[in-house]
Amino acid sequence: MSRDRIIQVERDILGKNERLAGDNRARFRADGVLAFNLVSSPGAGKTSLLVRAVVELKDSFPIGVIEGDQQTSNDAERIRATGVPAIQVNTGKGCHLDAAMVGAAYDRLPHLNGGVLFIENVGNLVCPAGFDLGEACKIVVFSTAEGEDKPLKYPDMFAASSLMLINKIDLLPVLSFDLARTIEFARRVNPQIEVLTVSARTGEGFAAFYAWIRKQSEKMKPVDMATAG
Amino acid sequence: MSRDRIIQVERDILGKNERLAGDNRARFRADGVLAFNLVSSPGAGKTSLLVRAVVELKDSFPIGVIEGDQQTSNDAERIRATGVPAIQVNTGKGCHLDAAMVGAAYDRLPHLNGGVLFIENVGNLVCPAGFDLGEACKIVVFSTAEGEDKPLKYPDMFAASSLMLINKIDLLPVLSFDLARTIEFARRVNPQIEVLTVSARTGEGFAAFYAWIRKQSEKMKPVDMATAG
Repeated sequence: MSRDRIIQVERDILGKNERLAGDNRARFRADGVLAFNLVSSPGAGKTSLLVRAVVELKDSFPIGVIEGDQQTSNDAERIRATGVPAIQVNTGKGCHLDAAMVGAAYDRLPHLNGGVLFIENVGNLVCPAGFDLGEACKIVVFSTAEGEDKPLKYPDMFAASSLMLINKIDLLPVLSFDLARTIEFARRVNPQIEVLTVSARTGEGFAAFYAWIRKQSEKMKPVDMATAG
Repeated sequence: MSRDRIIQVERDILGKNERLAGDNRARFRADGVLAFNLVSSPGAGKTSLLVRAVVELKDSFPIGVIEGDQQTSNDAERIRATGVPAIQVNTGKGCHLDAAMVGAAYDRLPHLNGGVLFIENVGNLVCPAGFDLGEACKIVVFSTAEGEDKPLKYPDMFAASSLMLINKIDLLPVLSFDLARTIEFARRVNPQIEVLTVSARTGEGFAAFYAWIRKQSEKMKPVDMATAG
């Protein structure tokens, strides 16, 4: 088959996704919901991080979670055990969530008005970079066990993300991981990326993460007012 | 666009890849080259593992390496520093190597007759599962830092692999990682999968890995003789 035909099909798929992501974004805005798209390699600790965050934030505002995995509902079950509603999406052969899946899952969540929606994408540092889900921004979770050069080797994901959460910093003493170098590499592909270090196991750094979320929430409000005005 | 059209395009892409993978397989067999396709999450330690293996094996038989990454030639440079030839393939937006890329890279390697070709795929536990490169078998590298349930959440990759190399076992004392449970989960999706534990940092377990490689090499010979007969 011709290369042109493949490119055209890719354009069609992405074009359709863009339209549906726009619909999601409009719904989130109308509901006053701040949506984050969490992306990472498999095993970087997205779910452990979310379990801690939802437990510590759930009394402050409504929270919902959409969990993406090829198979299993393990992650949604871990979230639900905290009392926070979670919808599992299984992508089967698929390597990323798309806007249609997120829109359908959002329909099944209770109203989150004025709250936060965490979307945990399939663990994959490549494909989810190209698929807008309608989120306010992407958060790339990166583990100290992964090696410093990943931002250079998988630049699209780091370029597409607003925040890099470096997780598992409790392992730093036993790893030869150069934190400053990792941050330098991430800024080389995305000079604007914000960086926070956390440990989902010990809770270190989470206060700064919550402050960052509140800052995003404040950013959202003037935009809404401007739109309304 | 219609779902049918997408499925047809996927079939065309996979069909073309199958044909080229068959060509690669025939070439490897004719050259007496044993080819392994190493797959994993980003950061599981494939390159560190290969650096150690090629240093320790390069005096025993010819070795070549094909390195796949979205960007950078860091990994090929790390291999070349050992004196072993390596070709870097950059996939750009692509999330996996395909048979055409591997065939073209193989052309650029010196003759490996009677030796081993290691193909390090893009770090991605999803997409490389569906793309045959012409290898003798896939080896899935899995790090103790990734969490036990990955074989269930990304079953295609574990089902497609002949060997699971559990790397970073030197970190076991500081992690809450259940090795037996991980192996049980991997066998649930692939009862035939072989399992070895290694540490690319300390060298633990590598003797068993080399014995496994020699066993694959012996398996290949009778096949060649049968073909020749």
